[in-house]
Amino acid sequence: MPDAILNIYVARFSIQICKFAARFFEFRPMANITKPSIPKGTRDFGALEMVRRNYIFDTVRQVFQRYGFLPIETPAMENLSTLLGKYGDEGDKLLFKILNSGDFISSAGAPLNANADKAALQICEKGLRYDLTVPFARYVVQHQAELTFPFKRYQIQPVWRADRPQKGRYREFYQCDVDVVGSNSLINEVELIQIVDEVYRKLNINVTLKLNNRKVLAGIAEAIGAAEHIVDITVAIDKLDKIGLDNVNAELQEKGLSADAIEKLQPILKMNGTRQEKFETLRNILTSETGQKGIDELQTLFAYIDALNLSLNVELDLTLARGLNYYTGAIFEVKANDVEIGSITGGGRYDNLTGIFGLDNMSGVGISFGADRIYDVMTQLNLFPDNAVARTQVLFVNFGGEDELYSMKAMSQIRAAGINAEIFPDATKMKKQMGYADKKNIPFVALCGETERLGNTLTIKNMATGEQQSLSLADAIALVKA
Amino acid sequence: MPDAILNIYVARFSIQICKFAARFFEFRPMANITKPSIPKGTRDFGALEMVRRNYIFDTVRQVFQRYGFLPIETPAMENLSTLLGKYGDEGDKLLFKILNSGDFISSAGAPLNANADKAALQICEKGLRYDLTVPFARYVVQHQAELTFPFKRYQIQPVWRADRPQKGRYREFYQCDVDVVGSNSLINEVELIQIVDEVYRKLNINVTLKLNNRKVLAGIAEAIGAAEHIVDITVAIDKLDKIGLDNVNAELQEKGLSADAIEKLQPILKMNGTRQEKFETLRNILTSETGQKGIDELQTLFAYIDALNLSLNVELDLTLARGLNYYTGAIFEVKANDVEIGSITGGGRYDNLTGIFGLDNMSGVGISFGADRIYDVMTQLNLFPDNAVARTQVLFVNFGGEDELYSMKAMSQIRAAGINAEIFPDATKMKKQMGYADKKNIPFVALCGETERLGNTLTIKNMATGEQQSLSLADAIALVKA
Repeated sequence: MPDAILNIYVARFSIQICKFAARFFEFRPMANITKPSIPKGTRDFGALEMVRRNYIFDTVRQVFQRYGFLPIETPAMENLSTLLGKYGDEGDKLLFKILNSGDFISSAGAPLNANADKAALQICEKGLRYDLTVPFARYVVQHQAELTFPFKRYQIQPVWRADRPQKGRYREFYQCDVDVVGSNSLINEVELIQIVDEVYRKLNINVTLKLNNRKVLAGIAEAIGAAEHIVDITVAIDKLDKIGLDNVNAELQEKGLSADAIEKLQPILKMNGTRQEKFETLRNILTSETGQKGIDELQTLFAYIDALNLSLNVELDLTLARGLNYYTGAIFEVKANDVEIGSITGGGRYDNLTGIFGLDNMSGVGISFGADRIYDVMTQLNLFPDNAVARTQVLFVNFGGEDELYSMKAMSQIRAAGINAEIFPDATKMKKQMGYADKKNIPFVALCGETERLGNTLTIKNMATGEQQSLSLADAIALVKA
Repeated sequence: MPDAILNIYVARFSIQICKFAARFFEFRPMANITKPSIPKGTRDFGALEMVRRNYIFDTVRQVFQRYGFLPIETPAMENLSTLLGKYGDEGDKLLFKILNSGDFISSAGAPLNANADKAALQICEKGLRYDLTVPFARYVVQHQAELTFPFKRYQIQPVWRADRPQKGRYREFYQCDVDVVGSNSLINEVELIQIVDEVYRKLNINVTLKLNNRKVLAGIAEAIGAAEHIVDITVAIDKLDKIGLDNVNAELQEKGLSADAIEKLQPILKMNGTRQEKFETLRNILTSETGQKGIDELQTLFAYIDALNLSLNVELDLTLARGLNYYTGAIFEVKANDVEIGSITGGGRYDNLTGIFGLDNMSGVGISFGADRIYDVMTQLNLFPDNAVARTQVLFVNFGGEDELYSMKAMSQIRAAGINAEIFPDATKMKKQMGYADKKNIPFVALCGETERLGNTLTIKNMATGEQQSLSLADAIALVKA
């Protein structure tokens, strides 16, 4: 480290430094240098991952916009008062909390509570967003005067959760949410299903969309005289495939359902046949108003889906119980047909998104695309297109002096033609420069030495075939652009 | 709130919920509902701001890629051991620290230190990134085995600083950094200047790039026999325009410079003439090796700039002293010519970016574009292109029933043609639907009632002119796409 730099260290703050002038760090002696790492559950993304992730983001973004949804972004940090109590007690524990700046001990007011959860609230006012839905609800309420309802927004941002990291589960990950608020119309559900169809068609992933309705689940519970057991019933139905009918019935009994209720549930558990036959069975059993309304909604959705010739497979799935404690109508879940990975998209209708922030009667419906799982599916199925690579198309070998300047001028023209190009920064050994092109998978190398400079040509080498051609600039552009 | 939902609340965690199933919050009674807000110094971005910001990001990204730079992203959270001590004591205070999860009090080991800065380190292991440079240095060291050097990367991500919020200064803001490490060649500086030129040409902002070199500043200090006063001298020179020569000299005296040193500095303070004349003056005065090398570097850069016919104005500016404590060669600063707003891009050469993480001899050079200030400049000068709007191109009025389905089918075709379209979700009053189109600045409205449905046409209304036309689907697509 140059001593002169150390000498001036003390004067640091006498120099006016604008906001991003401070982008480089101090050179300070460090006693211990340890190999650096990142917090567990977080990831660095290199160029290839970035390009592939952006391919997914760009695809969903384009489809969202095609359907009239507009982007918003909210801050990474929200007030804890906005976040707390929205995700259950367990969710509160999973929030990353930001320590108050300055003398957080004095500003805590009282000595810290011995209970860590309570003490945290004395010294933290802010937290990192846990999902995009609560910030969206906060946004709608805060900006309601500026918004046009029905308000259609999408949002693609990272969220943070202090979950125990494990394979496929991260503490920082992206969500891609698309929601409409301020409309009860089932067309919104239809359009979200169309969005799912179009996104996965563009990404080339074969998917099945499972559809259920919370009102139908409530209707089942009502019909068998066990309205208060809706969750137990749903959880049990959810296990039918895995544990079989007898075990499901045993579990229901254990949960306190009467023999009569269990008996009445059997026709639903054993229900099969076509979608139409299932609806008829349900119509006969679910006689409550809620149940009938749920069936109406499902049938309406299926009628739209049939009429619009969607290419994705949509299935009625009464066992689909995700989000049962907040969804009030449609429930969606999307799975990849060709990879075992769990749900890659999900969502539903919620009748009171913004009520918690004091704005009532705002029904909404939305879905969320899980970028990380979609990435995993596409990797496993090798679905990323060949052009989803971030790379330089042409490397100019650096021969120094006038040849270098000739190369740089030619390169400006090539870049102006929309081609990514770079020159090796040093006029070093040819082998090293070619090795650089090779490691970076650069498909073409331009060689401009004295001959080319005097003849006003470029020699272009195709790195895959080894073929070399002497070309005019225009022909070189045509060759490397192809 | 439906009671049924409350009833099932307790059962929340008995339902298997996949990662993004938990995107919607619990419906819980709240005693106090306060109008929600966001932390000071942070911002929400609506659709128009998003589109305009993305216009800036997309422009810089495309130019970065054109020059062979590839994207990386690093996590929002870094270990505090990575961040602390890199930004000076004041910077350490401005780091947002993340409270450890779980029982942070017990895991603190000892009772909390009475000093808040020390106590913070007992209960926080992670912090939010403060800039993109330290994470980049950490990335290069951590991933050095996988990287090809010279390593050219760009990174566009938000950073967080607990600065006192004020006009134009935020606690969350984006940086757009582009750096090369592992090469001493001045071509890298040239290419960064070309990038500045191309970015601002594409954004239509007239800028001046000011260029200086730390070695020249050191050479000046050496030449007048006051090497240890380099900062004082630079700060004083920086004020020449504002306070005049006499006051500069007085300040230098106050800082302890000898009369002899101040006397020797006068030819530099009074220096004028062409760039070439200035260089000649400097050559005569800065006789030290460092000083001569600095002049060499600057002259080489100007020779490239002249040869490459850049359109931006590049000025030699000896008063440019930004980042004096970390830059070791070139120093860049870019200002908009037509708006008083301070620097909108800056950077320089640093000789030991990664040394602090144990990887020596990695010289690098980089610049950072300040997205927020660029946004402000473009807003003030009204430079955002008209198509930098996020909007739906066509709104289908909803007449319900069969007309609705007819509209939805036509809309699918329109979307397939790459046009953003939406249908009003409810078959409500015409006035309300037209008002929606109006408020959202949707330029065309499609009216498909019985006449259109039976005639297999669409009536398209141009919202600006009020003109209505009955058209085939193909003609309608041609009209609204134009």
